[in-house]
Amino acid sequence: MRNIKLIISYDGTRYSGWQVQKNAVTVQQVLESALKRITGRRVKIRAAGRTDSGVHARHQVANFKTRSRLAPARIINALNSILPKDILINSIEEASCKFNSQNDAKLKHYRYTVTTSRFVDPFIRHFVARFSYPLNINSMKRSAARLVGRHDFKAFQASGSKEKNTVRTIKRINIEKRGSMVYIDIWADAFLYNMVRTIAGTLLEIGRNKLPEDRIGEILNKKKRALAGPTAPAKGLCLMKVEY
Amino acid sequence: MRNIKLIISYDGTRYSGWQVQKNAVTVQQVLESALKRITGRRVKIRAAGRTDSGVHARHQVANFKTRSRLAPARIINALNSILPKDILINSIEEASCKFNSQNDAKLKHYRYTVTTSRFVDPFIRHFVARFSYPLNINSMKRSAARLVGRHDFKAFQASGSKEKNTVRTIKRINIEKRGSMVYIDIWADAFLYNMVRTIAGTLLEIGRNKLPEDRIGEILNKKKRALAGPTAPAKGLCLMKVEY
Repeated sequence: MRNIKLIISYDGTRYSGWQVQKNAVTVQQVLESALKRITGRRVKIRAAGRTDSGVHARHQVANFKTRSRLAPARIINALNSILPKDILINSIEEASCKFNSQNDAKLKHYRYTVTTSRFVDPFIRHFVARFSYPLNINSMKRSAARLVGRHDFKAFQASGSKEKNTVRTIKRINIEKRGSMVYIDIWADAFLYNMVRTIAGTLLEIGRNKLPEDRIGEILNKKKRALAGPTAPAKGLCLMKVEY
Repeated sequence: MRNIKLIISYDGTRYSGWQVQKNAVTVQQVLESALKRITGRRVKIRAAGRTDSGVHARHQVANFKTRSRLAPARIINALNSILPKDILINSIEEASCKFNSQNDAKLKHYRYTVTTSRFVDPFIRHFVARFSYPLNINSMKRSAARLVGRHDFKAFQASGSKEKNTVRTIKRINIEKRGSMVYIDIWADAFLYNMVRTIAGTLLEIGRNKLPEDRIGEILNKKKRALAGPTAPAKGLCLMKVEY
């Protein structure tokens, strides 16, 4: 049995996220059926980041096991030829049989992109959320610094999540403004469901002075979702990198 | 009567070009019906570049006459609120009553974008043409230099065009490679129908050594469309700027 590792980009606009669902088109599903056509057998793909509906990826890492003897170069060409143009396999390689793209991930990098202009550039409209308020970037940076480290991020997960262990380690957060664009980059060992979007939504409310700068500490202490800001829209989120 | 000047961006993917047509959705049509809703009267918009089906614009210049007394700031907000997200009004201002966006244009800049990778990045797939051959950029640059100046570009217009005066002046051509992307930038006083796409198609054939480097001179002398390369795909083309 071979274990094949893939690096994948996708424009998530048309998809109900990564993971297979009934009555919805997902990236995993489209990839699995393409691989079935190519290898002649059903395959199950795992991925590092189970991105949500409408979320994008520039460097999703996935793997699948197969008895097919096709060379990686043949598989990548066949896949890219039959996949829709909003999904691209960047690379394929043989991995050790123990490699598990989901469990072995050590560091994930997500970027949340916002524009503060009143209207969005048509060329990037699917990849940017609009947040038309002036933002105090320094205030956002100071608040973000409070999130770095090992914390219980329970309050930053989607309400109703059943995850028991909600402790995660954020290694770094970077906030940068370029013109009307604001980029919130977050690196962590792992993320809870909706965690980046809730953090982004909270930092943006702090940036526009609707929540106090010290709110982050309060949220981490009291662990109440209601204290945090709204979940920022999916289209601004992109999985940038996964490291092992 | 007021004369209003607009600067417009659009992702041309969904449109049958700029100009109003029967049984097809065009940018002009969508704008005119939005303006009718806003001003209460039919308006006719003129534009500097009558971009073709699938061609994009970052800085299309247009104008229309109206008796409406709405302030430009009100018009731009109303327009951007009702226009589809693939068309954006960048700015609106009052122009002199003699200003004609089409006839007064002095310099137009179009960019043709190509990727030489085998497969296209999903995030820019609508804005880039794929041309998966190694390209000799220096050869393309030398050939392009031959096009600069005042010439009869008859051979570079779409076959069947009825334009009588086919003399145009190309002020500058710039060809640049960045990674797998190749940008062909052309500045001219005016362009014939399909002229940029035919020039791009010809330079690309020269770049891959399928046409000889001195072919440009031959095409300009003999004025035969058949000597030039194919018309490059619409999606790689973008109107970048119009100057007056």
